Amino acid sequence: MTIHKFEHPLNEKARTYLRVESLLRQMHHSADFSDSLKYQQFFRSIFDLLEIFEQIQLKPELAKDLEKQRLTYKNWLNVDGVDQEKLQSILNEIDTTHKKLMADERFGKTLKEDRFLSSIRQRFNLPGGTCCFDLPALHYWNHQPVEQRIRNAKAWMDTLNSLSESLTLWLKLCRETGYAKPQIARKGFYQSEAEGASILRLSFPMEHGVFPMISGHKNRFAIKFMSFETGQAYSQDVEFDLAVCC
Amino acid sequence: MTIHKFEHPLNEKARTYLRVESLLRQMHHSADFSDSLKYQQFFRSIFDLLEIFEQIQLKPELAKDLEKQRLTYKNWLNVDGVDQEKLQSILNEIDTTHKKLMADERFGKTLKEDRFLSSIRQRFNLPGGTCCFDLPALHYWNHQPVEQRIRNAKAWMDTLNSLSESLTLWLKLCRETGYAKPQIARKGFYQSEAEGASILRLSFPMEHGVFPMISGHKNRFAIKFMSFETGQAYSQDVEFDLAVCC
Repeated sequence: MTIHKFEHPLNEKARTYLRVESLLRQMHHSADFSDSLKYQQFFRSIFDLLEIFEQIQLKPELAKDLEKQRLTYKNWLNVDGVDQEKLQSILNEIDTTHKKLMADERFGKTLKEDRFLSSIRQRFNLPGGTCCFDLPALHYWNHQPVEQRIRNAKAWMDTLNSLSESLTLWLKLCRETGYAKPQIARKGFYQSEAEGASILRLSFPMEHGVFPMISGHKNRFAIKFMSFETGQAYSQDVEFDLAVCC
Repeated sequence: MTIHKFEHPLNEKARTYLRVESLLRQMHHSADFSDSLKYQQFFRSIFDLLEIFEQIQLKPELAKDLEKQRLTYKNWLNVDGVDQEKLQSILNEIDTTHKKLMADERFGKTLKEDRFLSSIRQRFNLPGGTCCFDLPALHYWNHQPVEQRIRNAKAWMDTLNSLSESLTLWLKLCRETGYAKPQIARKGFYQSEAEGASILRLSFPMEHGVFPMISGHKNRFAIKFMSFETGQAYSQDVEFDLAVCC
C-alpha cells in the first residue's frame, strides 16, 4: 500500500517557508549536474529563490520565528518530567543558528551581485530562452568540466547556508509539535479548528485515487478529497492520518 | 581540445524554430522520469511550447517554409550531375511530411484542452509553485507508478509528432545548405554578409575561453567574441569555422 504524504501551510509565512525549503532541496539535488538538463533546474531554483527574497523580508521573519520557538522551549526549563539535557541541547541549537542567521547578509545579496548569474537571469524565464543564442555565456559555462561547475554551484549555495540551517531547524521543531492521529473524512469532507497552527500534515493510502484540496487559515481549516480520475469531489469516506503542527 | 558548437538564428522565424526544437528535445529527454525532478522539466517544456504556440501561428509558417524547400529542390530535377534518386527521395520526404502537417490540428490544441494539464499550468510558473499544496493534483500524478506516467507523457508528446517531424526535416535541410569554412575574427571581431540566410553555425575551441555575441539579420551579421572570465570583448584573434545556412 503506497502512502501519500501531504503538507499544507495554514498561513502565508508557512507557505513561503515550505516553498523555500522545496526550492533549496531542488537546488541541492540538481547541483551535481549528473544529467545534461540539471543545470536548468539548478539555475531556476536559484532565480526562484531570489524572486522570493525580493518579495519578502525573509531573514527578520525567520529570526523572529526562531526566537518565538526559543521562548516556548525556555518555558520547559526546570519543569519536572521534562528531559532537561535534551531541552538544553535544543536551546543551544536554536541559539547557535539564530546567531549565525543574524550575522548573515540579506538573503541572496551575493547571488544578486554575481556578474554571471545576473547576466543570465532575465532571459532564463523566456519560453525556450536557454538556447545557446539567447544565453551564450550560460552555454559556455555549461560546457566547462563538471568539477568546475560543481565548485561554482557549491560557492553559490554556500551563501544560503544560514538560511538553510535556520529554516530546517524551524520546520523540524514545528513538525515535531504535531502528532498524527487517525481521522475520517465523511463523504470525502473533513473540517476542524487549528488555533495558531502553521502546518497540517496528512497521510493516506494512494489506493483511494484521491488528493486533498485544503482551505483554511490559522483558526479553521477544511479538507475536501478530490478524485484524480474525474476531477470531482470524492463522495466516499476517506480514512487518513492528520497532524496539526504549530 | 574541446570544440564549442554554436548556432545563431538570423531571423525571428529561425529563432522560434530553434527554440521549439530545443524545447521538444528537453521534453523528450525528461519524459523517462528517471530523476525525481525530471517531471518539472517535462511539464515546463510542454507549457513553454504552448506559450509559443499561442504567440505564433507556427503551423502555417512551417508549412510555407517546407513548401519553399520543396520548390528549391524541384529546380534540381533533371539537372545533369545531380543524384536524381537522392533528390526524389528528399522530395518524397518533404511531400509526406507536408501532408501530415497539413492534416494535423493547430499545434497544442489537444494539450490545451487536457483537463489535467490545464489545471496545473497556471501555478506552475510561480516561484516554488510546484509544492504539493500549490498543485495537489500534480503531486498525486507524480506519485503514480513510473510506467503510468511514461504512458501519459507519450500520449501528450504524440500530439506534437507532426510538428516534430516537420521541424526536424526543415532544420536538417537548412543546416545541410551550409558548409563550414575556416575564418579568423581579427581582434575578436568578424562581420560578413549573408543574403537570405537563416542560421549561422560556428565552431571553435573552448581553450580561448570565449563565447560569441552575434548581432545581425538576414543581410549582414557581426560576431564579437567575449571573454567568459572578464565579461569584456576579447582582443585577440580567434580562429573559428563558420557555416551560413539558408
